[in-house]
Amino acid sequence: MIIKHPEDVPSTEVEMEGAEKVKKRALIMKEDGTPSIAMRLFELGEGGHTPFHAHEWEHINYIVEGDGFIKFEGRDVPLKKGDSILVPAGEKHQYRNAGKTPFKFLCMVPKEYG
Amino acid sequence: MIIKHPEDVPSTEVEMEGAEKVKKRALIMKEDGTPSIAMRLFELGEGGHTPFHAHEWEHINYIVEGDGFIKFEGRDVPLKKGDSILVPAGEKHQYRNAGKTPFKFLCMVPKEYG
Repeated sequence: MIIKHPEDVPSTEVEMEGAEKVKKRALIMKEDGTPSIAMRLFELGEGGHTPFHAHEWEHINYIVEGDGFIKFEGRDVPLKKGDSILVPAGEKHQYRNAGKTPFKFLCMVPKEYG
Repeated sequence: MIIKHPEDVPSTEVEMEGAEKVKKRALIMKEDGTPSIAMRLFELGEGGHTPFHAHEWEHINYIVEGDGFIKFEGRDVPLKKGDSILVPAGEKHQYRNAGKTPFKFLCMVPKEYG
């Protein structure tokens, strides 16, 4: 059994090109011995966004706090707490904070990509 | 891309033996075409609990709302919003609501077990 409280997990700035004001907490990772699924928490500051990018793996997201958008296929869909998203492999997408408070979401991926 | 708002997903009572006041929302499932990971939201009412049980697959949990406990190996560990848990396959465990408001947590499993 692995139990982590938020204060146990350091927050690190995401340095990836195209990322602005993005912090990440590695909650459950392969280093924790997870058999198949990794879970990370992303936090976008005011005006923050992830890169508009695609990659070879899918991810599942759950909005934990704040207001934001997901951009894909020329659309901007508003998101709020409790929304669930499946981003398929190869589909270009971007998350953006739409508010003045942090926009936080979970991101679950196959452990190899965590 | 699949996007679901909470109101899009029906809540169903969990009828499993040993479950008390447990509701489930199937957020992202194999029926949605998820390649590897399923995500469900469980909600325990006042006095509610999951069965004290073990199973062949692991799950990853994230506490979304409320106050509760996880019981395992004779321990009761208090849990609150933002806590992350990896429950390994074969390890006996139970979630319990410790408050008067709903205790809500996500449960991610390999899609075969969703």
